[in-house]
Amino acid sequence: MTRVLLATRNQKKLAELRRILAVEEVSGLEVLGLADVDEFEEAPETGATFEENALAKARDAAAATGLASVADDSGLTVDALNGMPGVLSARWAGQHGDDRANLDLVLAQLTDVGDERRGAAFVCAAALVVPGGEETVVRGEWRGALTRKARGTNGFGYDPIFVPEGETRTSAELDPAEKDAQSHRGRALRALVPALRQLARA
Amino acid sequence: MTRVLLATRNQKKLAELRRILAVEEVSGLEVLGLADVDEFEEAPETGATFEENALAKARDAAAATGLASVADDSGLTVDALNGMPGVLSARWAGQHGDDRANLDLVLAQLTDVGDERRGAAFVCAAALVVPGGEETVVRGEWRGALTRKARGTNGFGYDPIFVPEGETRTSAELDPAEKDAQSHRGRALRALVPALRQLARA
Repeated sequence: MTRVLLATRNQKKLAELRRILAVEEVSGLEVLGLADVDEFEEAPETGATFEENALAKARDAAAATGLASVADDSGLTVDALNGMPGVLSARWAGQHGDDRANLDLVLAQLTDVGDERRGAAFVCAAALVVPGGEETVVRGEWRGALTRKARGTNGFGYDPIFVPEGETRTSAELDPAEKDAQSHRGRALRALVPALRQLARA
Repeated sequence: MTRVLLATRNQKKLAELRRILAVEEVSGLEVLGLADVDEFEEAPETGATFEENALAKARDAAAATGLASVADDSGLTVDALNGMPGVLSARWAGQHGDDRANLDLVLAQLTDVGDERRGAAFVCAAALVVPGGEETVVRGEWRGALTRKARGTNGFGYDPIFVPEGETRTSAELDPAEKDAQSHRGRALRALVPALRQLARA
């Protein structure tokens, strides 16, 4: 079995990544989390793009562990905020990882922004770095619009305020399999599958 | 004397506008503030650009009072935030007009953004609307970079975290005349002076 490390400390993101890869059934691949390897220090996310950050995280993990490593960087891009929070999605309200503060701030900033200007997209860049081998970076996008109130308890991050195109429910009201089938992370991970299959065969 | 109304409820902005116009010595013009006219209701600022908002405010004031009216809309555009807070500068932290909360949030959002990516600009759009006459909209910009800590007590808004190009002091450490000579608002208002002189002669 070829081992591949999913390099994220976000447990909900890890669960999504595992779920999406499980559906794809890449044979010959053993999927590890950070709990399965020795601890290592991560560099701060200072890139200007999702792709830079995903690649930096995957490179750090591959260098520290010697394992083929997958990392993602993802976030919400809001049209009326010129594409922000973007790479700052996880720390939009100032502290890292406070989902509720982050989405409350976006809703407050958009108080006077009308329905016709509430478009947004979730974006996910996913990177696979093979030590001494190839680097692959892919991107998935999921268009939708923002609500005026949070709704739903599934998912994480900005899911409770994002209604995907063609849906009336927020992405926090979709069940996990429905979300994975459409989501930015689902699209990005599926785009990595050919590289993962190649890795498993190598 | 031709009367012109400076249509802003922000007392510090009003003082800057009066000061800048006083230096220009437009003869034949009597400058009024909102305290000099009957109260009227202002529409919320919902434009996507500084120009739209400045024009809407000047139109509202001119329609309500019958006076030639000047309004400005201004804000901070931060490179690493794709030009935001922009038109949302006054309510960036969620509530309108809390200068300290707004600038603290920008600093927190930029915690991991290095010095080479801390560029920003103050932008001011100023509009003059003459009832039954012409509409003029102009723009002034002031480039600089953001500090990591607030410094200085002059000015308002984001002045304490903005170091103009060619300066080492923040714009809140400049004295008022120094600020007006360089600032976005000074540039915009001076660009309106020809239209104001024409109004005073009419």
